[in-house]
Amino acid sequence: KYNGKLLGGLLADGFDEAACTSRYSSFLYRKISFHKPSSYLISRLRSYEDLHKRCGPNTQSYNKALEQLKSGNKIGLTDCNYIVWISFSGLGNRILSLASTFLYALLTNRVLLVDQGKDMADLFCEPFPDKSWLLPRDFPLIDQFDSFNRNSLHCHGNMLKNNVINSSAMSKPSYLYLHLVHDYGDHDKLFFCDGEQSFLENVPWLIMKTDNYYVPSLFLIPSFETELGSLFPEKGTVFHHLGRYLYHPSNHVWGLITRYYRTYLAKADERIGIQIRTFDSRHGPFKHVMDQILACTLKEKLLPSVDMQDSVVNPSENAKLKAVLVTSLLSGYSEDLRNMYWERPTMTGEVVGVYQPSHEEFQQTEKQMHNRKAWAEMYLLSLTDVLVTSAWSTFGYVAQGLGGLRPWILYKTENDTAPDPPCRRAMSMEPCFHAPPFYDCKAKKGIDTGALVPHVRHCEDISWGLKVVDDHDDL
Amino acid sequence: KYNGKLLGGLLADGFDEAACTSRYSSFLYRKISFHKPSSYLISRLRSYEDLHKRCGPNTQSYNKALEQLKSGNKIGLTDCNYIVWISFSGLGNRILSLASTFLYALLTNRVLLVDQGKDMADLFCEPFPDKSWLLPRDFPLIDQFDSFNRNSLHCHGNMLKNNVINSSAMSKPSYLYLHLVHDYGDHDKLFFCDGEQSFLENVPWLIMKTDNYYVPSLFLIPSFETELGSLFPEKGTVFHHLGRYLYHPSNHVWGLITRYYRTYLAKADERIGIQIRTFDSRHGPFKHVMDQILACTLKEKLLPSVDMQDSVVNPSENAKLKAVLVTSLLSGYSEDLRNMYWERPTMTGEVVGVYQPSHEEFQQTEKQMHNRKAWAEMYLLSLTDVLVTSAWSTFGYVAQGLGGLRPWILYKTENDTAPDPPCRRAMSMEPCFHAPPFYDCKAKKGIDTGALVPHVRHCEDISWGLKVVDDHDDL
Ligand SMILES: Nc1nc2c(ncn2[C@@H]2O[C@H](COP(=O)(O)OP(=O)(O)O)[C@@H](O)[C@H]2O)c(=O)[nH]1
Ligand SMILES: Nc1nc2c(ncn2[C@@H]2O[C@H](COP(=O)(O)OP(=O)(O)O)[C@@H](O)[C@H]2O)c(=O)[nH]1
Repeated sequence: KYNGKLLGGLLADGFDEAACTSRYSSFLYRKISFHKPSSYLISRLRSYEDLHKRCGPNTQSYNKALEQLKSGNKIGLTDCNYIVWISFSGLGNRILSLASTFLYALLTNRVLLVDQGKDMADLFCEPFPDKSWLLPRDFPLIDQFDSFNRNSLHCHGNMLKNNVINSSAMSKPSYLYLHLVHDYGDHDKLFFCDGEQSFLENVPWLIMKTDNYYVPSLFLIPSFETELGSLFPEKGTVFHHLGRYLYHPSNHVWGLITRYYRTYLAKADERIGIQIRTFDSRHGPFKHVMDQILACTLKEKLLPSVDMQDSVVNPSENAKLKAVLVTSLLSGYSEDLRNMYWERPTMTGEVVGVYQPSHEEFQQTEKQMHNRKAWAEMYLLSLTDVLVTSAWSTFGYVAQGLGGLRPWILYKTENDTAPDPPCRRAMSMEPCFHAPPFYDCKAKKGIDTGALVPHVRHCEDISWGLKVVDDHDDL
Repeated sequence: KYNGKLLGGLLADGFDEAACTSRYSSFLYRKISFHKPSSYLISRLRSYEDLHKRCGPNTQSYNKALEQLKSGNKIGLTDCNYIVWISFSGLGNRILSLASTFLYALLTNRVLLVDQGKDMADLFCEPFPDKSWLLPRDFPLIDQFDSFNRNSLHCHGNMLKNNVINSSAMSKPSYLYLHLVHDYGDHDKLFFCDGEQSFLENVPWLIMKTDNYYVPSLFLIPSFETELGSLFPEKGTVFHHLGRYLYHPSNHVWGLITRYYRTYLAKADERIGIQIRTFDSRHGPFKHVMDQILACTLKEKLLPSVDMQDSVVNPSENAKLKAVLVTSLLSGYSEDLRNMYWERPTMTGEVVGVYQPSHEEFQQTEKQMHNRKAWAEMYLLSLTDVLVTSAWSTFGYVAQGLGGLRPWILYKTENDTAPDPPCRRAMSMEPCFHAPPFYDCKAKKGIDTGALVPHVRHCEDISWGLKVVDDHDDL
C-alpha cells in the first residue's frame, strides 16, 4: 500500500511534526505522484541518513575531519568525507544546485553540509533526522566562501591549470574548492571526468560553489552510470524525487503556501500555473510577452478563449471554475489576463479567476520576506494541474520538478516579438543544466554531450543546455 | 407565497428575458430581502406602468404634449404630464437622483422620461413594460440640457426670483426647468413647498437637473405625506425598493457582475464589501486611511485580526473562507489587506481572500467601460453580507440601498489622521440627501429640517444632510 504521508517511502518517519508542518502534510495538497521512488533510492536515502547521523555537525567524526582541515594536510584516512555547498545565486538556482550536490554526495558517499547564507534555515526544514544539514557557523573557511572564485588558490580547476596537482598525485590536500559556477573554465569542467572523480575521492573536504543543476553531466560520468541507473530507473525523475525529499518549506513559508492555496486555489476545478520571467533589462510589462502568453495558452487549449463579440453567454450553474496562478515580478500580465476574463465571457462558459501572490517589481535577493515569498510561489506553482513556465528560468524548473509536471515552456522572445510557435511542451520535468561541458574526457577533445546517450539531451529552452529525459519521453 | 423571481411582486411579469437577463435572475445572487414591498406600492407601480404605456414616447398622448411644448404655451389640459430627468454628474449620483425623480413622478402622476446622456442605455435595462423610459433623441429641448442652470430663462427658481411667475398665476408655461443641483438657490428650494407643488401640477413638462437624492425632503412636503406613508409603511426602504425596481443591469454589465461573483465571491462562506473613496485631491493611498479601515473592520469584528507573533496557526480543514470585495480607485488599500492576510494567520483560523475588480486611478466619467465597471462594482458590493462604505459617497449609498444593507460608514478623515471612532453603523440603508433645504414653507423662515419628524434625520456622515430612517431604526 502507498504511504501518502511519507510520499511512498521517500521520507523517513519519526520527525517532530510541529517543527516542520509541511513535511508530513504536503501530501494533502498534491495529487499522488505518478512517479514512485525506486526501492533502491529509498534504501540509499535511509543509509545516507545513517551516514549523516554518524558524521553530521559536532559528531566525533566531524570534529576529527575538522582537525584535519585545520591542520591543513591530510593525515591518513578520515571516517567521513564532506561536501560543503556554498549558498550562492538566486533561490531557484540554489534549490537546483543543492539538489545536484546532494546527488553527488549520494554517489560519492559524502556528507552534505549546507552553508546557510542569509536565509536557508528560514526557508527550509531540516531534511535529515537527528543531525542538522547546516554547516556550523564557526566552520573555519566560512569567511572565505564569498571570495572563492575560479582563480582561488584552492580551486580545483585552477590547481589543475597551474599543475599544482594532477590526478595521479599521491599526496592529497585536506580540502579543495570546486568552482562550478556558470563562468567556470575548462579545467574546472574536468570535474565531470572519471579521472578527476577518482582523484577527489580521498579529499576529505570539498567545498563547492555552483549555480547550476549539473545532474545531467553526472549521468555522463561512466563510473556513476550503474548507480544512477539503479537509483532512477525512471531517469527523468531525479529532481522530482530529490526535491521532494530535501525541500520542506519552513513553517513560516508553509503558512504562506497553505493560506494562499486555501484562500484562492482550493475551490477551483482546475489550477493553471503561469510563471512569467523575462530576462530583459527594461522594466516591462511588454506587449509581445502578453501576446506570447495568450498565444500559447489559447493555442494549446490550456485556457479557454473569450468571446470577442461579447455576446451574452451566461455562466451556467455547473460551469467549471479555473484558477490561474500567475507568478511574475510585475503585476501587468496578470492584470491583463484577469481583465480579459472579467470583461468577456469564455467560449466554453467556464469562469476563470486570475491570482498573483506578489509583484516585487525588481529581483531582490537576500531579503527575508522576499525569498520566503519566492519559495512559496515556486511551491504554489508546483501545486497546479497544468504549468506554463518561462524559458531559462530556474524558478520554473523548481516548480515543474516538485510538481511532477511537464510544463509548456514559453520560448525566449527575440527582437520584441512573440516567437512562433510561442511555446512547446517540455520533454521531461527535469531542470536544464545551463552550462554543461562539451568535452570527451577519454578522447580529450570537444564533443556534443547532448548526443551521447538517449537520456541526456539538449534542452527545449536553451540549445546548448543539457537535461535528463526518460527513454520513453515524448521528444 | 413569496415570488423570488419577481422580488415579491415588485417586478412586473412578462418582460423578454433575453433582452435583460438580470431582471429575472438577480434573485439567484441575493438573499431574500427582509423588506417586503407594500401591496400599495406594488399596485401603484402597476398603475404607473399602465400610465407609462399610455403616455410613453411616440404615443398619441406624447405627441400631443410635444405639440404643446413646441407651440410654447399651454392650451387646455394635456392627457399626460411629464418629468424629464437630465443625465448629470457621477453614476452614483445619477442612480440616486433618478430614483428620487421616479418617486416624484409617482407622487405627481407624471411620466418619467430619461435623458440617455452618454450611456444610460448601455448601463440599464428598460424598467417599464412596452414603452421605453428613454427620452427620444429628437426631443426639442435636448440640445439645451447641458446649458440649463440656475440662471436659465425657464428655470423655475429663477422665474420666481424675478417674479415672472408666482404660484397663484393663472396662466402656466408649457415647460419649466427645475434646478435641484447642489448649487441651487433659495428660490429653487421652494420646489419643496406645497405651494409650488400645486403650481407645478398643471405644467405639462418639467425638466429636472439634479445630482441629489432628494427623497428625504419629499417626506417633509405635507401633501405627499399620506401617499408616502402608504407606499412605504417601512420608511427606510424607499431606495431599496425603487432601486431594485428600476435598475436592472444591462446584459453587458450583468456579465461583469455574474462572472466576477462566480469567479471570486460565490464560494466564500461570507462576503464583506469595503468601498473606499477619499475625496482628497492628492493621489494616495494614504496611511491614515488604511489605518482607519483596519481600525473599523477589526474593532467592529467585521474581519478577523491577524497573529502578529506569526505563530503557526494552521488553517483547519473546515475553517471559514471570507471574501473581501474592495472597491477603490486605487489598488494600494486592497493590496495591503491582501498581503496582511497572506503573510499572517488569523486569530480565528479563518482564511481571508481580498479582491478588487478594478483600480482606475482617477475618476473618469463618460467612458463606456469605466461606467460599466463602476456600476458592476456598486452592484457587486450590494451582493455582500456585510458592507463598509465611505462617508459622502453616493457610490456606497447605491450599494447599501440595493443590497438592503445597513453599512458601517468610515468617517471622513480630517488633517490626515484616522478619526476616532473610525466608523459607525448607519441608522438606515437609505442614501443621504447632501444639500437639503432648511426652510419652513409656512413660517417662511429657516428651520432645522432634520428635527421636524422622527423619520427624517441628519445623516451619519454629513451633519447637514438628511436621510429617511425607520421609526424603529437603531439611532
Ligand atoms: N516572488 C517572486 N520572485 C521572483 C519571481 N521571479 C523572479 N523572482 C525573484 O528573482 C529571483 C530569481 O532567481 P532564481 O530563483 O534563481 O530564478 P531565475 O533567475 O529565474 O533562474 C527569485 O529567487 C526571486 O527572488 C516571481 O515570479 N515571484
Ligand atoms: N470602478 C470604480 N469607479 C469608481 C470608484 N469610486 C469612484 N469611481 C468613479 O468615480 C465616480 C464617482 O461618482 P459617483 O458614482 O457619483 O460617486 P461619489 O462621487 O462617490 O458620490 C464613479 O461613477 C466612478 O466612475 C470605485 O471604487 N470603482
